[in-house]
Amino acid sequence: MGHLPRTVLPDARVSPRFAGVATFCRYPLLDAVDAAHRPVDWALYGVPFDGGVTYRPGARFGPRAIREASQYVKPVHPVHGLNLVEIFSMADAGDAPVQPYSCKGTLDAARDFAAALPDPDRTRLLAVGGDHSIAWANMAATRQRRGAAPGVLHFDAHLDTVDAVWGERWGHASPFLRAAEDGLIDPGCMLTVGLRGSMNSAADLDVARGLGIELVTYEQWASGSADERIDEFRSRLGDREVYLSFDIDCVDPAFAPGTGTPVCGGFTSAEVIGLLRRFAGVNLVGADVVEVLPAADPAGITALLAAQLVFEILALDAVRANA
Amino acid sequence: MGHLPRTVLPDARVSPRFAGVATFCRYPLLDAVDAAHRPVDWALYGVPFDGGVTYRPGARFGPRAIREASQYVKPVHPVHGLNLVEIFSMADAGDAPVQPYSCKGTLDAARDFAAALPDPDRTRLLAVGGDHSIAWANMAATRQRRGAAPGVLHFDAHLDTVDAVWGERWGHASPFLRAAEDGLIDPGCMLTVGLRGSMNSAADLDVARGLGIELVTYEQWASGSADERIDEFRSRLGDREVYLSFDIDCVDPAFAPGTGTPVCGGFTSAEVIGLLRRFAGVNLVGADVVEVLPAADPAGITALLAAQLVFEILALDAVRANA
Amino acid sequence: MGHLPRTVLPDARVSPRFAGVATFCRYPLLDAVDAAHRPVDWALYGVPFDGGVTYRPGARFGPRAIREASQYVKPVHPVHGLNLVEIFSMADAGDAPVQPYSCKGTLDAARDFAAALPDPDRTRLLAVGGDHSIAWANMAATRQRRGAAPGVLHFDAHLDTVDAVWGERWGHASPFLRAAEDGLIDPGCMLTVGLRGSMNSAADLDVARGLGIELVTYEQWASGSADERIDEFRSRLGDREVYLSFDIDCVDPAFAPGTGTPVCGGFTSAEVIGLLRRFAGVNLVGADVVEVLPAADPAGITALLAAQLVFEILALDAVRANA
Amino acid sequence: MGHLPRTVLPDARVSPRFAGVATFCRYPLLDAVDAAHRPVDWALYGVPFDGGVTYRPGARFGPRAIREASQYVKPVHPVHGLNLVEIFSMADAGDAPVQPYSCKGTLDAARDFAAALPDPDRTRLLAVGGDHSIAWANMAATRQRRGAAPGVLHFDAHLDTVDAVWGERWGHASPFLRAAEDGLIDPGCMLTVGLRGSMNSAADLDVARGLGIELVTYEQWASGSADERIDEFRSRLGDREVYLSFDIDCVDPAFAPGTGTPVCGGFTSAEVIGLLRRFAGVNLVGADVVEVLPAADPAGITALLAAQLVFEILALDAVRANA
Amino acid sequence: MGHLPRTVLPDARVSPRFAGVATFCRYPLLDAVDAAHRPVDWALYGVPFDGGVTYRPGARFGPRAIREASQYVKPVHPVHGLNLVEIFSMADAGDAPVQPYSCKGTLDAARDFAAALPDPDRTRLLAVGGDHSIAWANMAATRQRRGAAPGVLHFDAHLDTVDAVWGERWGHASPFLRAAEDGLIDPGCMLTVGLRGSMNSAADLDVARGLGIELVTYEQWASGSADERIDEFRSRLGDREVYLSFDIDCVDPAFAPGTGTPVCGGFTSAEVIGLLRRFAGVNLVGADVVEVLPAADPAGITALLAAQLVFEILALDAVRANA
Amino acid sequence: MGHLPRTVLPDARVSPRFAGVATFCRYPLLDAVDAAHRPVDWALYGVPFDGGVTYRPGARFGPRAIREASQYVKPVHPVHGLNLVEIFSMADAGDAPVQPYSCKGTLDAARDFAAALPDPDRTRLLAVGGDHSIAWANMAATRQRRGAAPGVLHFDAHLDTVDAVWGERWGHASPFLRAAEDGLIDPGCMLTVGLRGSMNSAADLDVARGLGIELVTYEQWASGSADERIDEFRSRLGDREVYLSFDIDCVDPAFAPGTGTPVCGGFTSAEVIGLLRRFAGVNLVGADVVEVLPAADPAGITALLAAQLVFEILALDAVRANA
Repeated sequence: MGHLPRTVLPDARVSPRFAGVATFCRYPLLDAVDAAHRPVDWALYGVPFDGGVTYRPGARFGPRAIREASQYVKPVHPVHGLNLVEIFSMADAGDAPVQPYSCKGTLDAARDFAAALPDPDRTRLLAVGGDHSIAWANMAATRQRRGAAPGVLHFDAHLDTVDAVWGERWGHASPFLRAAEDGLIDPGCMLTVGLRGSMNSAADLDVARGLGIELVTYEQWASGSADERIDEFRSRLGDREVYLSFDIDCVDPAFAPGTGTPVCGGFTSAEVIGLLRRFAGVNLVGADVVEVLPAADPAGITALLAAQLVFEILALDAVRANA
Repeated sequence: MGHLPRTVLPDARVSPRFAGVATFCRYPLLDAVDAAHRPVDWALYGVPFDGGVTYRPGARFGPRAIREASQYVKPVHPVHGLNLVEIFSMADAGDAPVQPYSCKGTLDAARDFAAALPDPDRTRLLAVGGDHSIAWANMAATRQRRGAAPGVLHFDAHLDTVDAVWGERWGHASPFLRAAEDGLIDPGCMLTVGLRGSMNSAADLDVARGLGIELVTYEQWASGSADERIDEFRSRLGDREVYLSFDIDCVDPAFAPGTGTPVCGGFTSAEVIGLLRRFAGVNLVGADVVEVLPAADPAGITALLAAQLVFEILALDAVRANA
Repeated sequence: MGHLPRTVLPDARVSPRFAGVATFCRYPLLDAVDAAHRPVDWALYGVPFDGGVTYRPGARFGPRAIREASQYVKPVHPVHGLNLVEIFSMADAGDAPVQPYSCKGTLDAARDFAAALPDPDRTRLLAVGGDHSIAWANMAATRQRRGAAPGVLHFDAHLDTVDAVWGERWGHASPFLRAAEDGLIDPGCMLTVGLRGSMNSAADLDVARGLGIELVTYEQWASGSADERIDEFRSRLGDREVYLSFDIDCVDPAFAPGTGTPVCGGFTSAEVIGLLRRFAGVNLVGADVVEVLPAADPAGITALLAAQLVFEILALDAVRANA
Repeated sequence: MGHLPRTVLPDARVSPRFAGVATFCRYPLLDAVDAAHRPVDWALYGVPFDGGVTYRPGARFGPRAIREASQYVKPVHPVHGLNLVEIFSMADAGDAPVQPYSCKGTLDAARDFAAALPDPDRTRLLAVGGDHSIAWANMAATRQRRGAAPGVLHFDAHLDTVDAVWGERWGHASPFLRAAEDGLIDPGCMLTVGLRGSMNSAADLDVARGLGIELVTYEQWASGSADERIDEFRSRLGDREVYLSFDIDCVDPAFAPGTGTPVCGGFTSAEVIGLLRRFAGVNLVGADVVEVLPAADPAGITALLAAQLVFEILALDAVRANA
Repeated sequence: MGHLPRTVLPDARVSPRFAGVATFCRYPLLDAVDAAHRPVDWALYGVPFDGGVTYRPGARFGPRAIREASQYVKPVHPVHGLNLVEIFSMADAGDAPVQPYSCKGTLDAARDFAAALPDPDRTRLLAVGGDHSIAWANMAATRQRRGAAPGVLHFDAHLDTVDAVWGERWGHASPFLRAAEDGLIDPGCMLTVGLRGSMNSAADLDVARGLGIELVTYEQWASGSADERIDEFRSRLGDREVYLSFDIDCVDPAFAPGTGTPVCGGFTSAEVIGLLRRFAGVNLVGADVVEVLPAADPAGITALLAAQLVFEILALDAVRANA
Repeated sequence: MGHLPRTVLPDARVSPRFAGVATFCRYPLLDAVDAAHRPVDWALYGVPFDGGVTYRPGARFGPRAIREASQYVKPVHPVHGLNLVEIFSMADAGDAPVQPYSCKGTLDAARDFAAALPDPDRTRLLAVGGDHSIAWANMAATRQRRGAAPGVLHFDAHLDTVDAVWGERWGHASPFLRAAEDGLIDPGCMLTVGLRGSMNSAADLDVARGLGIELVTYEQWASGSADERIDEFRSRLGDREVYLSFDIDCVDPAFAPGTGTPVCGGFTSAEVIGLLRRFAGVNLVGADVVEVLPAADPAGITALLAAQLVFEILALDAVRANA
């Protein structure tokens, strides 16, 4: 690939991991990346918004908490054996503008912000929430920048294809239904994995299935009965562009207490990381990590897991870039 | 006053304070008050809404936390020497309906709920927030039920007379400006006490003063320099109807960490309780206690203080009723 | 089954899950269930007592914490596919009377309270603790209402068949020995699963085995070596009446830190939920969920798990009712 | 006084304050005090019991938490200017035996343990709770060892002279009524200071006054209106033996959140320490510090305050010893 | 003063206070301040070091926590009535380099970093700790940049003039003795206020007094007996350059639990802010705020207070600049 | 083995598990063990030092927290069926001296302390950290007492064979490299298991492999692909002396949040306990349990796990002693 851009990390002899203004994984602020390292491969940005929640708010503080927790992320992947900062140029683009009193206003503003980030043909977008409603903004910006509706790899305890809650069509229960309606994604090439917990209505499943989404419950995954379907989905993806959306509540509350609508009986961190790594090398066109609620995370382990997942997601693409 | 209604408390020999479904101060649910004890003098209700905040959300869980903490409230006032349940009939009217995605929608719904509670000529309303925006709903309902615009006694670190934030006129920074505009209160007979902390603009003070509000900073109170003004306000009130609005953030964060926009350097609990008691016997026509954020209250002392303040506010009126 | 009773849940458009006085799973208070929905199939009640503990107290606050956490429980089961509120009429019967200074006094009072709940032939009892001593009260009330000594399905890290601690025969280490002695249960048809952790005496195991209890340690379960025994027990149960007692400490402290005598190295939530579901369709005659200690549960995940387990236990019976 | 005994503290160059098995204020275990430093002037011991509480349990873990927090207590008093370890020989006598299921059983066992500690004519007893019921045990042991019924200096938000709760005469609401009945103290020479908060019955005050106890509310103290009465009590004490009982809930919950029955609106730490020091030089015959509940003390400041109060109480006597 | 530089704050309509990469008080990063706003009047920087503590470590995370908490600091001072960003240009210079395993190494590196910040004749330094040892580095850098040894205004519960601890001369107990020895400050023009709590040795006071430091205990301040001495010190300062060092532990643990060596019985926040404001208009040549320990600050109120104190300290100088 | 020594535990009827001065597992202090029970088989001691950490400090409080948590450890092993106090004499030797400002100084002092404990031919050493640097001290003391360099069984998320950090060769990243260089251990007979998480450099693995260490990542263990290598290592050990070092961060942060450098995606407690038990009967010559950080352990489950692991490690040797 010729002269690869590389991310310049702060010298740990000068500024230990507990020092300095905290950016995602200690990557430089996008404005501070010099010409030699542009365009960046991945721009990470926060969307500090929680106006779309249906239960506990506070995910607006997620981006800051994940920036802090990500200081302990190091550059070399333990399994893939790759040094991400030698493969990619990555940057923290700051936070998108939000309108705390308006979900749709925020989504439009965040979409416009992200769509306008430089180098759309090269720089891909990783959004850090905020509640899951913000995934729509990142999918919309990605769609504007790239042209085709990608497939979706979706980790979640919930379907997030509900039409409306309290009469409102924009919120954290609806991003994928809206995205499908708006042609931002191809729900016929979408896998949702990690579903579990009590539901308001069994009909909710019909909506998701009607869109063509492949549904895998946690129980199916844990029993191994979904392995074949997951493999088939991986095959179907091939080299097709795919968007990855990771709701931290797909993980069990023991591992991720800091989230707004926790459901007991989910993935361990090791399980979900292992599942994620099965998708190493996919053609990743954008991603998000959402629903971290610091106020419910007394030991900070949820933000830490989210920070590690950001790294794991970037590593999926590093495997491809390195191939 | 003839046969006074009395609140029937659960028998503590059967159901200790840590037992049973938690209602405000263990008062009965309004629906469960029998005819002999109707109409009630005070109906307490929650407004679990925090869509009007400008910083940390979560006050939607305030009513529940205050119900729990209020289980340790007993009926006899230590200074006034009155047994409130022998003077008043009081009840928990449950929570008002809310529209979590719409501040104005919630305020209208909560106003309608409260306005429609039975016995408007006798039963007064004490709303438990929720963020301070909900005070508008309780003031509006009170105005509908009583007819005249009352004076206001307002405890707060902030003015809450800001015109708009992020372009939105309904929120926790604006309830008293909106109430004044709507004729719900008489700002010319209003005292705001406890002001302190950095401000966005010095002009904010001009708005409040322009409405005729008497402003007392915490520093003025602490130095004693505002004593005369406070006494004058008390005299000016005389027997006029007055609405009391208590934002828990008027108290220092050491005493009330669980709030969304805390400001260091405020009242101790003892100080503010003492100040409150100076208003014993005023003609209280309605009240609210707002801005308790349980997720930032690790030892539960903020909710406990709010519960005690509910009791102290009711006691102000008990002194009058007993006179 | 003719006209089924149905539980009427609050309209979530009026009262979101964070609103209203908290009852178990938002089911109505028993007193408020109208004739059309009576008799109820299941009455849930709390026993706020922790005077039987041998280490950390505080489970007296368990019922309240579980009521709060259960607000996020929805009616449709994700695996069985059943809508519980369409199958059952369920209600919150409040808390039993307790005598905080007397274990036996409390147990007798709670038994009498539960035994006297209406419709003994139809309404079954689910008690929420409180420490494990309170299981005796619920087993005793169930025995009075139903007539035959049921088998027992017992999830626990501990045996709970100790004769006495500190000279006292009533406490959380002894409920099943007392219940066996009193003929409330048939220990010859009892399975205890989840045992682990250091013991005071190896002879404790002999007592339990001497009663005829089938013992399965966590290690045996995890290795699969107990699968056959568990299946045999399930077969042996057949359609026989069975009482289910769930001590939250059978789960690992990562998932249930909020308990008084935690033991590391236990079930994950997913594992124990999976195991529980193997008993779908048993003839459930009563149940309890005990040992939740909110003061040791900083992120609230223990109470959340307990709330989900209440739902899972009811679902076991819903499968039978729906068959 | 001839050759004074001196407490030998661990060498801080060898064992920093965060090192070693924690004893009260790092004083030696009583068994480890060598002959040259015997008899000790003060024996500190814990009574890890909370079976007498009426609300939140957990004070059984108070002695351990206070031992830990007291590691930062140093020997020189900042105001009196005395080095306590040069004036006194002090030791940690461990914990009294308790019977967790029986309040009276515990009190008798603790009394017997304390009464039997060596050198009754010289060694005075400072008990660390545990709930306030344990004060009776320490007063009873002190009475046995010294002969005369002392006066009492009592810091508390509550009266603690209630006859019975839930039909039980032994508990944390009753120690001073029982002690008066048993002739352990002279209630006619007793001051209770810090009273505040709502009460179950105004008649409770009559019981205390009927015993001859001087009652000072927090409000009276804060307004200065009780200064004369406090001075008079101090004069009345003269050189008479006095027992000091310190319930941490006399302090405001901001300073002492970790207690079972907190009441907002109390002393600051500085205020209560200042008040305590007014009693420097009294003839102290015994003392207790009670009601620390570590599970409600997330930042550990309550245990820290209790540890400092232990030191301040000993310093009152050091002033006398040094006079 | 001609065209004043002004700090450009982020537009709160675009980036609410909970959004964006957190810098001190939302001031720009020094590198990002454009020429028109240079030189800055105040450069704020962190020193994330806690290798000098004698008890609880963790203050290395202080700068980050204070950056986060300072997002709620607004520009207008409530008492002085000044808008700081209209008076000053201020910037966040990031964190100094540290050597976590070496106190002296860190101090030298931090001094060199701070000394080398641009515009020494105009830009003054406010260091945010970190433990109190780092004050030496900021005093040394200030001395290099300004030329004369300033007086010192020192808020603390401790003297911090101990010669050595565990044989080490550099640490948080010694900064002012070292600074005096090194001629960085004039101890003959130094006030230490807030002293309290038990001491290792009464001789420690002699060392401080021997240097000529004016010592005011909290008790002296609270009783008013030190008012005259404080006024005299203020007069003595006149327009002389003064360095301000603020150890958060001068405040009571109720207000500042998050610190390493807390001492009960200190200032309330309101008290210390009031005392600080008495020094408005002094000729401030440098400052620090130290000893914030986020791991012991469960509700975040200590970091919030520290953030407000940073603002109050800058305001002291704004009064002078505006005069 | 003739007359076995036995550990005398406190009578739980006198002193419940929440009572008394806390020692490891309630074993007696070494100085208090009488002649009949000497020499002890195992001496447990703390090393309260965290000056070797590279991220979050605070493990200096680990020994105290583990002492407290270990009070709930009972003597009989649930799987091996052995009563440890009937097989071994065990004691708490207190804490080693530390030099908080010097890592090497502390290590030398701790080594000397441990080496000098009585009965080197019989009494083996179990050190409780503190950060992982202290393992060097225990390995060095063990080497002095026993003569031969043992093999090592090492549980960790990290390699801990880094040459230097920030120019310092002594710290928690380096103990096994230093131990190998110093001939304290035989790295050619060493297994490190639990490795995972991002790394600074892939070359770090080469250093460890170059020493001959067998490396097993968590992923390899979880997939079963390392089973053969683990069995081979176990066979290779045979009866050879082996040292066991347990870094609590090998466990997932859900189970062990209280540690300084947590890495998501690790062992569950059940998994690691199961793996540990595979080594029952090895010839254990010394051990440590390190990196418990109480300030990040809000529910105390990390210290509890560490306490159970201390028991499990001793049980490995009990199996051998009992063989």
